[in-house]
Amino acid sequence: MTTDGPAPRRRGRPSRTAKEGGPDTRDTILRAARAEFAERGYDKTSVRGIARAAGVDPALVHHYFGTKDEVFAAAVELSFEPALVLPSILGGPPDDMGERLARYFIGVWENPVSRAPLLAIMRSALTHEKAADVLRGFVLRRLLERIAADLDVPDPTLRAELAASHMIGIAVLRYVVRAEPLASADPERIVAMVAPTLQRYLTER
Amino acid sequence: MTTDGPAPRRRGRPSRTAKEGGPDTRDTILRAARAEFAERGYDKTSVRGIARAAGVDPALVHHYFGTKDEVFAAAVELSFEPALVLPSILGGPPDDMGERLARYFIGVWENPVSRAPLLAIMRSALTHEKAADVLRGFVLRRLLERIAADLDVPDPTLRAELAASHMIGIAVLRYVVRAEPLASADPERIVAMVAPTLQRYLTER
Repeated sequence: MTTDGPAPRRRGRPSRTAKEGGPDTRDTILRAARAEFAERGYDKTSVRGIARAAGVDPALVHHYFGTKDEVFAAAVELSFEPALVLPSILGGPPDDMGERLARYFIGVWENPVSRAPLLAIMRSALTHEKAADVLRGFVLRRLLERIAADLDVPDPTLRAELAASHMIGIAVLRYVVRAEPLASADPERIVAMVAPTLQRYLTER
Repeated sequence: MTTDGPAPRRRGRPSRTAKEGGPDTRDTILRAARAEFAERGYDKTSVRGIARAAGVDPALVHHYFGTKDEVFAAAVELSFEPALVLPSILGGPPDDMGERLARYFIGVWENPVSRAPLLAIMRSALTHEKAADVLRGFVLRRLLERIAADLDVPDPTLRAELAASHMIGIAVLRYVVRAEPLASADPERIVAMVAPTLQRYLTER
């Protein structure tokens, strides 16, 4: 995270630079929001707290994003940004699409930097209806439909959801509940076992 | 829920009957605990609140179950009681094991009475480390190992967990996030699509 002005302060009065706004300010607020939601959860995160973490005035958070739900939606979108490569992953040779997809998902979950915000989103969606709304809107509108558009099967969105559901469930058991032996299994072993499932959902007519 | 004495009161002083204890009292407390955890979540549920809902003295809750975590563990166990039929489901003809299992799981999730406590457990485990501990201990010790013992494949516990992870993920997307078209898909359609996945995990060597 970089800004042209002084680094945003995590406590105290908003810095003048951030207050003046600009594209860097929006980015600073967004990254602070993502960190706040990930650390505190949806419930305990406030626009005021995000503003404090970003070193800006709360009015600036409202100016750029609107309500808390809208900041959350933007933070979800930021967290799913790596997923924008999915169409190119799916666009390769169809014979090992399942394997590529499984490896991509496991890679995202294995990396603590990308895992933390995704877990936070999952926790928020499971415990707060508004957060579930945001995820539903985002997941449906952006991600699943984009993936489904690239699939040459009947009911592509349903199939994309079944594939996604499997990866979500693995994340729950492996990274949250940490049920053994799944929690300690070698990532490549999971990829090898899961790939045929994803392959079937995404390619078999 | 029945008791020999007067029905347990939800508010006010503990009734004398419940205070005196007995197998019905334990059952009354347990069902009240399950309802409290389901309604309020792990965090906001207290031994005092459970006692109030069951119409007993908090000391009686401690007497039968111990700490809040131990009441939670017993409530989890009660919620997973229907799952004790799983070995008999798995014990039938191996050719349609995946289909029987998929139909069993979707049936449990489709029924609001069995769904509510399972969702509560999932929410609690995702947001509270202690609840995740309980689920990990229970799921591993009782359920998955029992299922794995009936499977004639290498790494049976890992395979049982992969099957379980898929059903958990479907529950998240269909019943919590309510992502369409999965949320509105006919249960039998989901069973038909998911059965081959479970079949492969549980039977293919």
